[in-house]
Amino acid sequence: MRYEELTLEGRNAIIEAFRSGKTIDKVFVLDGCQDGPIRTIIREAKKTDAIIQYVKKERLDQMSQMGKHQGAIAYAAAYEYATVDDLFVRAEQKKEDPFFILLDNIEDPYNLGSIIRTANQAGAHGVIIPKRRAVGLTAAVARASAGAVNYTPVAKVTNLVKTMEELKKRGMWFVCGDMDGEVMYRQDLTGPIGVVIGNEGDGVSRLVRENCDFVASIPMFGDIDSLNASVAAGILSYEIVRQRMEKKK
Amino acid sequence: MRYEELTLEGRNAIIEAFRSGKTIDKVFVLDGCQDGPIRTIIREAKKTDAIIQYVKKERLDQMSQMGKHQGAIAYAAAYEYATVDDLFVRAEQKKEDPFFILLDNIEDPYNLGSIIRTANQAGAHGVIIPKRRAVGLTAAVARASAGAVNYTPVAKVTNLVKTMEELKKRGMWFVCGDMDGEVMYRQDLTGPIGVVIGNEGDGVSRLVRENCDFVASIPMFGDIDSLNASVAAGILSYEIVRQRMEKKK
Repeated sequence: MRYEELTLEGRNAIIEAFRSGKTIDKVFVLDGCQDGPIRTIIREAKKTDAIIQYVKKERLDQMSQMGKHQGAIAYAAAYEYATVDDLFVRAEQKKEDPFFILLDNIEDPYNLGSIIRTANQAGAHGVIIPKRRAVGLTAAVARASAGAVNYTPVAKVTNLVKTMEELKKRGMWFVCGDMDGEVMYRQDLTGPIGVVIGNEGDGVSRLVRENCDFVASIPMFGDIDSLNASVAAGILSYEIVRQRMEKKK
Repeated sequence: MRYEELTLEGRNAIIEAFRSGKTIDKVFVLDGCQDGPIRTIIREAKKTDAIIQYVKKERLDQMSQMGKHQGAIAYAAAYEYATVDDLFVRAEQKKEDPFFILLDNIEDPYNLGSIIRTANQAGAHGVIIPKRRAVGLTAAVARASAGAVNYTPVAKVTNLVKTMEELKKRGMWFVCGDMDGEVMYRQDLTGPIGVVIGNEGDGVSRLVRENCDFVASIPMFGDIDSLNASVAAGILSYEIVRQRMEKKK
């Protein structure tokens, strides 16, 4: 499910990519440029929910690898995204309660890759990431995932809170990691569950947190603020693994 | 306990650093160069167990930031190393059983920093790293540790196996993470313990493994080989946290 191309330069290349159905994560367009092809790119980007960023010519020149951006550069997904339904199908196939990892705006490709790797090993059925303010499936993410991106589906959703509401109707529970919560060891995290991991700097956002059924804390005895996001995701996910294994006995 | 300087260029600067007792992690010396000051640098490096690497002029030119290496460049530790005794003192001060994290050749600064951060939060009394084939306390490591390097002592030892043997005489037990071991949830990891984390690619080396009292496995259900080293360190360390908390009840 790997795509070949990552960075697209020039109007035609980008329009072609949209037309062929390629997933474009983000387009950079020359600020103020209003001609036909650019307008087509913006229209297609809006249609497919790609992020549009208007930038100055200097920025595009700097980003350009081939020196022929013609006012537009796009980032195509290095890997294909799954749908949330794909994640449920995986759980059904394995005859397991759904176990998803939701990322509330993870920005660091190294962390995202590492979390996909953890999801794969912990037996999670997939990862859900939001479209905006978060890193997508770039080549760096794929590398950091040690290949797990080829096995563990990653779904990209427009609104994480809305997705959580829909998933609740399908019987899922959500737990987020936060310092204020009850210690994770004392909570029942078995059953169909989504683990929510917050942004590296800000943690879990208010609305997402309010939509969680549990707030679980990882005990911390240190002098600093928090754990690395991918380490926290690993510790919380493996508490679910432990509890599921206990329950099976 | 922060040092100001990281890269030292030029014979005098390096000799001066050695004389002032600064911790030099590594020296790069022009291959074939045999004059007095260079010989002094090599002698001091051997005395303090710094790593010596003989390189070509092109390499030094490339590494040089100031363009005045005069045949020698050295990396000084960005942070001061602790001794193994410092780690014991910390455990005693907290009236806790010693809990150390030993790294068998972690090479990635991001992983080392992240593990020091985890050590700090998990309440470990310190981290022990080997002198050779491993990353030291560089500025990148300090950054990735989110400042934890200022609180959690890191000791650097010449021979990890020898250090383990000495620590065993002081009553410590060692557990290493490895796929072949018994599932960590079923082992008693309370008491004075050292957690050994293997190299990113090769895992725990044979001799180190043979010196471990327990081999514990993190359950893995995935399609790939392993977890990220810093994530694995987090999961294993927190299993110790969980067991210690259980025991206290």
